[in-house]
Amino acid sequence: MQIYTREQIEQVVGLDDTALGVIRDAFTALGRGEVVQPPILSMALEEANGEVDVKTAHIRGLKHFAIKVSPGFFNNPARGLPSLNGLMVVFSAETGVAEALLNDGGYLTAIRTALAGAVAAECLSRPDSKRVALIGAGEQAGLQLEALRLVRDIESVDVWARDKERAEHFARETEERLGLTVRSHDSLHAVCENADIIVTATPSRSPLLELSMLPAGVHVTAMGSDSPEKRELDSDVLTGCNHFVCDSRSQSEINGELKGLEEAPSFEVHELGALLAAGHRLREQANDEEDGQQFITVADLTGTGVQDTAIASLALARLTHQ
Amino acid sequence: MQIYTREQIEQVVGLDDTALGVIRDAFTALGRGEVVQPPILSMALEEANGEVDVKTAHIRGLKHFAIKVSPGFFNNPARGLPSLNGLMVVFSAETGVAEALLNDGGYLTAIRTALAGAVAAECLSRPDSKRVALIGAGEQAGLQLEALRLVRDIESVDVWARDKERAEHFARETEERLGLTVRSHDSLHAVCENADIIVTATPSRSPLLELSMLPAGVHVTAMGSDSPEKRELDSDVLTGCNHFVCDSRSQSEINGELKGLEEAPSFEVHELGALLAAGHRLREQANDEEDGQQFITVADLTGTGVQDTAIASLALARLTHQ
Repeated sequence: MQIYTREQIEQVVGLDDTALGVIRDAFTALGRGEVVQPPILSMALEEANGEVDVKTAHIRGLKHFAIKVSPGFFNNPARGLPSLNGLMVVFSAETGVAEALLNDGGYLTAIRTALAGAVAAECLSRPDSKRVALIGAGEQAGLQLEALRLVRDIESVDVWARDKERAEHFARETEERLGLTVRSHDSLHAVCENADIIVTATPSRSPLLELSMLPAGVHVTAMGSDSPEKRELDSDVLTGCNHFVCDSRSQSEINGELKGLEEAPSFEVHELGALLAAGHRLREQANDEEDGQQFITVADLTGTGVQDTAIASLALARLTHQ
Repeated sequence: MQIYTREQIEQVVGLDDTALGVIRDAFTALGRGEVVQPPILSMALEEANGEVDVKTAHIRGLKHFAIKVSPGFFNNPARGLPSLNGLMVVFSAETGVAEALLNDGGYLTAIRTALAGAVAAECLSRPDSKRVALIGAGEQAGLQLEALRLVRDIESVDVWARDKERAEHFARETEERLGLTVRSHDSLHAVCENADIIVTATPSRSPLLELSMLPAGVHVTAMGSDSPEKRELDSDVLTGCNHFVCDSRSQSEINGELKGLEEAPSFEVHELGALLAAGHRLREQANDEEDGQQFITVADLTGTGVQDTAIASLALARLTHQ
């Protein structure tokens, strides 16, 4: 079995159109019923303020499947270590033989998460979307922005973070790095006001966005909530938007935004893969297409095993020049 | 991260009293509520006649936890590959950092499974047990026998297997290797007739043992059934024995012998760890101890994550001379 380091993996997989296509195809296969994706294995290690998740999926026809282990240990920063970690083991889908260990430290998870945001925006946001609001100013917020540029012609960015200095630093750094207009804001209302696309990428444990903050025609991708205690959207966003879409309904009910509802949803819950498989374009299929452009759409992304198997397969193919 | 090969691991971990103690302590910790053990992650890859299970557990106070991946791909023998495979990744329980990959090909699983059989027999069988009946003549049957010798003074062995030649070969080979009297039998009735301890170690999909085959005072360990389609014991063994014990009730209901019952058990379901933690000796605590020696006890072992973390921790400590 071959081990690959984060550095090796970073050299071959990044935010590009091929990787975007791989994640889009993975969701489409999921929507077509061509994927076996068991529930997440999750274990808490309370005394270390830690948790570990294991995700996997098998995409029929693919030669490999990955088992991805994601530890999050939140006392690590005090020790000078990152909280998040991770690795993927890639197995032959024909023999079960372990072929490679991708010791990526969570890099591929960050990439496939950003690409899922792009796939959601490509499917749900207005095609002329130009202005992005980022809620959160961490690494994933930056990656979500970069991935969005693969699918929409982004011109300007507004950013809000709980830590104002962090938002300001993010704005300066991103403006310089990507050549976009980036402004930081003090209030959630202000950051959302003119957005075409809003991305929430925070570890928040209480809702940040309310329906009243959302301009007509906006698309929201909420990707921060991936465990039972996290939440970014007020229930009124779910009940009041025009279309609510998630990567996996069962995961959204446990780890994502659906768990915040006090009763079973009174609205239709779409899954991203099913929309892609059926070729649905929710805005275009409104009774009146102009109305569709005023729709508020919401995508809740919890992170799925099918993304892990897809991105690991791409990495392994490139690492071994298959 | 260090990778260790099967050969390296075989040199430091085997069936000995220390490893037995580690598995006994792991079950005791489980019984004391000192273990976090999430449900098994299980995925089927039907077109390859394959499946993969992921098990883990955290034992409070232990410096490491293991995530164990066990692929079983049953078309492999036709390709000249073993069906079963496996590896464990060992993580720090304080930081979540991956410290070692034990690329053991399932060796540690085989060892910890045999040791669980010994722990069950130590807890449940008559102390003067001398005669073992093995149902199944594969690698695990041999390991179960060897592990039993750590806890009981075994003098003779009877063996039955669906493949008669395999049973005869097993008998000759084991007699020579261990210096025990070993006889193969054609019928399940005959192989059980004089047994003090019966171990079933088969991949059977239909019950093999019936209550009428079991002599008074016998202890039965059924370790073959570890997935929804497998089963070794007729329901009358569960309902008719004096004490039914499993390694994990929730796993036994899904993967073990409890799933064979048509309705909720009318008898008390013991868990091995709880018995160990409470110091229960079921035979000695009968109303009349002589009656206790006539009890039929049954242990259903499906294989638990706590065993994996325990044996992986022992292996890593020995490999790194901690």
